[in-house]
Amino acid sequence: MSETITGAALIGRADVPAAETRMTAYNPSTGEELSPEFRISDEADVARAADLAWGAFDTYRQLPLAQRADFLSAIAAEIMSLGDALIQRAVAETGLGAGRMETERTRTCSQLELFANAVRRGDWLDLRVEDAMPDRRPLRRADLRMRQIALGPVAVFGSSNFPLAFSVAGGDTASALAAGCPVVVKGHPAHLGTGELVARALLKAAALTDMPDGVFSYLPGEIATGTALVKHRHIKAVGFTGSRGGGLALVALAAARPEPIPVYAEMSSVNPVFVLPAALWARGPAIAKGYVGSLTLGAGQFCTNPGLMFVLDGPALPPFLQVLATELGETEPAPMLTSGIHAAFERGRDALAARESVTTVAESRPPKGPNRGGAAVFRTDLQTFLHDEQLEREVFGAASLVVVCQDVNELRQAAEQFEGQLTATLHLDAEDTPVARELMPVLERKAGRILANDWPTGVEVAEAMVHGGPYPATSQSHTTSVGTLAIRRFLRPVCYQDIPTALLPPELNADGLARIPHLRNGMVVVPSERSD
Amino acid sequence: MSETITGAALIGRADVPAAETRMTAYNPSTGEELSPEFRISDEADVARAADLAWGAFDTYRQLPLAQRADFLSAIAAEIMSLGDALIQRAVAETGLGAGRMETERTRTCSQLELFANAVRRGDWLDLRVEDAMPDRRPLRRADLRMRQIALGPVAVFGSSNFPLAFSVAGGDTASALAAGCPVVVKGHPAHLGTGELVARALLKAAALTDMPDGVFSYLPGEIATGTALVKHRHIKAVGFTGSRGGGLALVALAAARPEPIPVYAEMSSVNPVFVLPAALWARGPAIAKGYVGSLTLGAGQFCTNPGLMFVLDGPALPPFLQVLATELGETEPAPMLTSGIHAAFERGRDALAARESVTTVAESRPPKGPNRGGAAVFRTDLQTFLHDEQLEREVFGAASLVVVCQDVNELRQAAEQFEGQLTATLHLDAEDTPVARELMPVLERKAGRILANDWPTGVEVAEAMVHGGPYPATSQSHTTSVGTLAIRRFLRPVCYQDIPTALLPPELNADGLARIPHLRNGMVVVPSERSD
Repeated sequence: MSETITGAALIGRADVPAAETRMTAYNPSTGEELSPEFRISDEADVARAADLAWGAFDTYRQLPLAQRADFLSAIAAEIMSLGDALIQRAVAETGLGAGRMETERTRTCSQLELFANAVRRGDWLDLRVEDAMPDRRPLRRADLRMRQIALGPVAVFGSSNFPLAFSVAGGDTASALAAGCPVVVKGHPAHLGTGELVARALLKAAALTDMPDGVFSYLPGEIATGTALVKHRHIKAVGFTGSRGGGLALVALAAARPEPIPVYAEMSSVNPVFVLPAALWARGPAIAKGYVGSLTLGAGQFCTNPGLMFVLDGPALPPFLQVLATELGETEPAPMLTSGIHAAFERGRDALAARESVTTVAESRPPKGPNRGGAAVFRTDLQTFLHDEQLEREVFGAASLVVVCQDVNELRQAAEQFEGQLTATLHLDAEDTPVARELMPVLERKAGRILANDWPTGVEVAEAMVHGGPYPATSQSHTTSVGTLAIRRFLRPVCYQDIPTALLPPELNADGLARIPHLRNGMVVVPSERSD
Repeated sequence: MSETITGAALIGRADVPAAETRMTAYNPSTGEELSPEFRISDEADVARAADLAWGAFDTYRQLPLAQRADFLSAIAAEIMSLGDALIQRAVAETGLGAGRMETERTRTCSQLELFANAVRRGDWLDLRVEDAMPDRRPLRRADLRMRQIALGPVAVFGSSNFPLAFSVAGGDTASALAAGCPVVVKGHPAHLGTGELVARALLKAAALTDMPDGVFSYLPGEIATGTALVKHRHIKAVGFTGSRGGGLALVALAAARPEPIPVYAEMSSVNPVFVLPAALWARGPAIAKGYVGSLTLGAGQFCTNPGLMFVLDGPALPPFLQVLATELGETEPAPMLTSGIHAAFERGRDALAARESVTTVAESRPPKGPNRGGAAVFRTDLQTFLHDEQLEREVFGAASLVVVCQDVNELRQAAEQFEGQLTATLHLDAEDTPVARELMPVLERKAGRILANDWPTGVEVAEAMVHGGPYPATSQSHTTSVGTLAIRRFLRPVCYQDIPTALLPPELNADGLARIPHLRNGMVVVPSERSD
């Protein structure tokens, strides 16, 4: 089955074709232009999409949960129906391999199914009931019921590095739709055609499952498009994955609105890795190999790329660095997503190489072809690291810094020093437990996810996942952008006091409470018979 | 048992007595000064309290949940032990009656007990487990576990109008301590002595239950004290109840920090009340009486005071307004909390009276004695209301505006017009259901709590309560400052991936999961045997 890429903005059910101002998609692997040209959505497009989303909001959020879940499942099915055309376009636009794109498609679809299941389960509604106590003295207690409701239309800014899983029908869109919020996506210039294909699949699913017009719109565009979107009064929250500069600009825009709105920006992280002494001694070479694999995966273009490693000085260090150099030296640089990202990577990597007391310990093969960035690992000592803030800044791509510490105390000092992170990783053996026990409380304060003997790249889409963390990893540390807890970003609680049954939302009536887990008079209740 | 009020700042376990810069407490009912004079805590005091809180943080948040719960219960017991001295001082400082103060003390203590129970229950930890799937293809699944952890030390700004329940050991403090966060309270100038008494009780409870030094500090102070507190790097969240101006100033301060932090500000609300036609017809006089009671309760100094009422024109309106005028006319104005609040009330009330197309329909008796504010109800029509933003602004105190609508359509138009609110109230009879059904989706979008046939003053402290709402009612619409969901403001999720059992937090080990409700592989699990 084939969908045509037309370059249009998709505003609800209407195609708005490309006009005079257009933008072009590129193949970063070859530097060639790709056809067609795309509309640069303007302020009128934004207003039309936001107004339509607002018009759809009350209808959409009040649909039965099962119908909302079916919509999410239908999106997954329609994305699969796009077949190989989607993979081919995504490969052409991103320079990522077909295998990676297929894996990412699977992840995107299973993510939609995970949210569909969560919608059916309904635990995120936070249902709570306190039964009336008419005879309580001195004052009667009213009947109190609570549920979470959707915030309103959500603006989604996809990321460059996950053209499927963090983009048009990615985690932000899936969780917003699951919460009951219409979505307006600002299409990312790095994968315009891929975005349009997915948007068309999503709109087809919306039609098949009888969703109201405006539940979803797709606006290919540039910065001005996104600015107009965040400022529109009918947009009530923003999901963003990208750079710290981009995220903070949206946060400032949203805070300056007459009605400020939350911006959930996942921004930057260097994902520190601690290699503890016994582990380094026992299996340094294996850790070095794993490090190179995680660092260079997808040309290093992951938010969870390990950009910082802390190791102890000692006899196990030189062989570790030797294996690192050999492994990285055999690596072939892959094309990066855009020429802009490639240029920024080289600037960042070269600036790191040029810092005082920083030496280069490993390099990949020299790049062949356009937009390939040579990977590199640098080395410094803790004192240099502590006194040079630049060393902690993310270089998006395959560049990493090994910080050599003199003792366990320095490891802890390092952990206390760094900024908020998406992840922190420990490589440890049983004998490292006492040291790890000292580090854990610090790492908990610093990161959204802590891993042992694994690598932070490869984020599982799961109920227990946290892809978030303290500032500046994200703008809102209490949230995650991966996993079902992400729904919570787009909800707010409402209490119903003595509301007659005829006016209560269905979830809070006897039927709903018989199906959905809830808290009743302070006790957790899980209905034993579930209709789903 | 008697505690002495000394005027000191209480920084952890240390008393820091009043120095050269001091402030005075007043009895608003008489205008007299009260002794002693109080320290105006300076920047060094703030730094000392915040550093001490930071030092206590890791210890406090890792205490067993039962011990944390015992601490909360002990605070309630110590507040009760203050006996009548607390009531007398609170009455003297606020001009509120002894009966009201006793009720508020009961509420404060039962609020602490409610949070103690919630701490023991542990549902707010959001425990989630996804078991490892080592044989999954193409990639194994790691063992994933999630819990919520405390954000860090919290700065609490109490409100003037609830010297106990929304102040030193009020809802913000109780929920922050429940979450595992140390608290630094900026003492409110309107009840400095009451604040010190409660702070001493809280510190005594901390000592009795072996809490770390710094888990709580009390800083009497002025605006500069609060500013320094919000800017301190060891403060990680702010709870505030007060004016819109004050709340937005703190929001701006917090956003401008190198590490921005969340400010949970409960700011302003006019709490619209809709009297639907059948209800007005059937029991207009009773509604008028209830309205006057709710409006003038506590001199109208409630966040949930009904400042706006929408009624339909028709034959039932004149008798309704007549009863309103009679009832209010018999009301004696009570003293307001401070001379500043009294002056602001009179300015706001008189400005409302002076607006074009606004008439006065009811007034209380003339005030006798200092700081009494004469209550008033005004009237206008919907068109005037829609075109004059000033009419929607909160006047803190017993002033309210009745907006007369011509038809049901105008009622809905009114609802769509107003800003975010803490509450919205419907007075309705069975025949009003179709109209109410149209209003409900609008009111859900506008308010944190919707009531039927009741008055918004008198907020139940309960699991299902929401005391929050869309901007400008609060700065963070996804939260509540009353009820156990308030804990969530001070938490963030952390995921543990393949972390060895020896390093896992106790809640996520087999023992914890055997006691605390959680989500396991997508299923809600409630342990049947509970140790508590």
